[in-house]
Amino acid sequence: MPNNAVKWIAADWGTTHLRVWLMDGADQVIGHRSSSRGMGGLSPDAFEPALLECIGEDLPDKETPVVVCGMAGARQGWTEAPYAAVPCKVPGVERATRAPTQDTRLKVYILPGLSQAKPADVMRGEETQIGGFLAGEPKFDGVLCLPGTHCKWAHISAEEVVSFRTYMTGELFSLLSKQSVLRFSIGDGWDEAAFEEALTDTLSRPAGIGADLFSLRAAQLLHDQSPDVARARLSGLLIGLELAAAKPYWIGQEVVILGDDTLAQAYELGLKSQSAWCRRVPAEGATLQGLKAAHAQLKASS
Amino acid sequence: MPNNAVKWIAADWGTTHLRVWLMDGADQVIGHRSSSRGMGGLSPDAFEPALLECIGEDLPDKETPVVVCGMAGARQGWTEAPYAAVPCKVPGVERATRAPTQDTRLKVYILPGLSQAKPADVMRGEETQIGGFLAGEPKFDGVLCLPGTHCKWAHISAEEVVSFRTYMTGELFSLLSKQSVLRFSIGDGWDEAAFEEALTDTLSRPAGIGADLFSLRAAQLLHDQSPDVARARLSGLLIGLELAAAKPYWIGQEVVILGDDTLAQAYELGLKSQSAWCRRVPAEGATLQGLKAAHAQLKASS
Repeated sequence: MPNNAVKWIAADWGTTHLRVWLMDGADQVIGHRSSSRGMGGLSPDAFEPALLECIGEDLPDKETPVVVCGMAGARQGWTEAPYAAVPCKVPGVERATRAPTQDTRLKVYILPGLSQAKPADVMRGEETQIGGFLAGEPKFDGVLCLPGTHCKWAHISAEEVVSFRTYMTGELFSLLSKQSVLRFSIGDGWDEAAFEEALTDTLSRPAGIGADLFSLRAAQLLHDQSPDVARARLSGLLIGLELAAAKPYWIGQEVVILGDDTLAQAYELGLKSQSAWCRRVPAEGATLQGLKAAHAQLKASS
Repeated sequence: MPNNAVKWIAADWGTTHLRVWLMDGADQVIGHRSSSRGMGGLSPDAFEPALLECIGEDLPDKETPVVVCGMAGARQGWTEAPYAAVPCKVPGVERATRAPTQDTRLKVYILPGLSQAKPADVMRGEETQIGGFLAGEPKFDGVLCLPGTHCKWAHISAEEVVSFRTYMTGELFSLLSKQSVLRFSIGDGWDEAAFEEALTDTLSRPAGIGADLFSLRAAQLLHDQSPDVARARLSGLLIGLELAAAKPYWIGQEVVILGDDTLAQAYELGLKSQSAWCRRVPAEGATLQGLKAAHAQLKASS
């Protein structure tokens, strides 16, 4: 039955998942739903039914704003939400694209991602995490690092995203450890000393990674290198390459790593081993905070 | 029926394929067979039946030497043929491992691969191609480059393999172009100028490849970069990283690229753009020449 305490709906619609929060008039979460109907498996006309399947029973009787971030706004998504070009503030609903709906209770705003013309780069979804972090620390001046499949580094200054870069480190780790010849040599464990050594090697000599990768296989065949050491070394080589490339971002800047998982911890370890000035803050909640900040504009304008 | 003109058999037994040549007493090829029963799909006791299936009808009535190179000698292969450690000459049958057979007509010699303790590296099969090249140019002093899934660079001097390194460039290209997010942006074509530009970028700034990879995706989304340009750029970035890492091999050395396909041509283009001293020779036949050279030792000792 309709839940008239719901005043608006926050949604993070990624490639593989949909996460939805039911919000009351005081921006408190009064319900949480999730679904595996990610953007990757949906044609444009399947988004509204997927959303209704997830939250239809909770919808109040009257028109309700739904603020959406993520891949739902991609060209192959629900409705393309054009990118906002950096430098710019994290865009809120004033720059959102309305998605057409049959159900008149839904008033859907799809937030834009960010783009950078040169070097060419894009993000969709992470800008909302950045917005969530900045809601808590609006005067932050420094660099945000968002580890993940595609790690993002964003330079923040004067309340704007000045520039950003994307590194495919997480995806490379997954492909190499699961689908390349290295899969025979890589385990599930960890070895911190091996991680740091490999990271330092690559930072000081980035090109070496070309041959160092195959050595992970050879070292097992010749020297019985343990699969845990190999996994930590692979991570160290790849994060080392990323830190070498991202050096202009972290040298002499305050770096905040947004994340609490082992991957975020590996980035922290790597940066600290290079004496970078960094701290780690939980990512949990950043997306919701960002959606709240985006929605606040709607309240302000109504 | 038995073919008594066959005096010995040469075999290249890789992970995915088996190629066999029937040789007469003057080292001329009198027959060629191939099979998709590569080492990857065979348990140790399945090698002899697979070989007999391929050449059983051609076998003469009497004991016949079979000289095998490649992954059949790996730990998971027919019989492990221990590596020969560099620096060393390309090993011939005097260092081969005999594989046990039921069929008394078969006298199987599995050639060793090469190993290097530090930096850890191994090869199995390519050493026979190197031996084939050296059979034609025994006084060669310089560097051999063998492009492929795992490209090998070998320093040759005084008729020995002095050192070598393996680069996973071909496998990385395949994983990134077919299985990563980049697959949406990469076509089948080619653009030579884009290849050279990307190669030069990475050679001068190897760490940049971290972010340059994702830019292949972003440049398509933002600037409609053509899929052919993206494919050539990806190849240029990866070969550029390899050439940066392999610089100690090719600077001031004569480099011979063993290969005649488009991949070998790309390496030649890349090296020549860096004013390296290089030439390209056909790989076709190098393995057979190497097997002949290995077999020659058997004739010499009998």
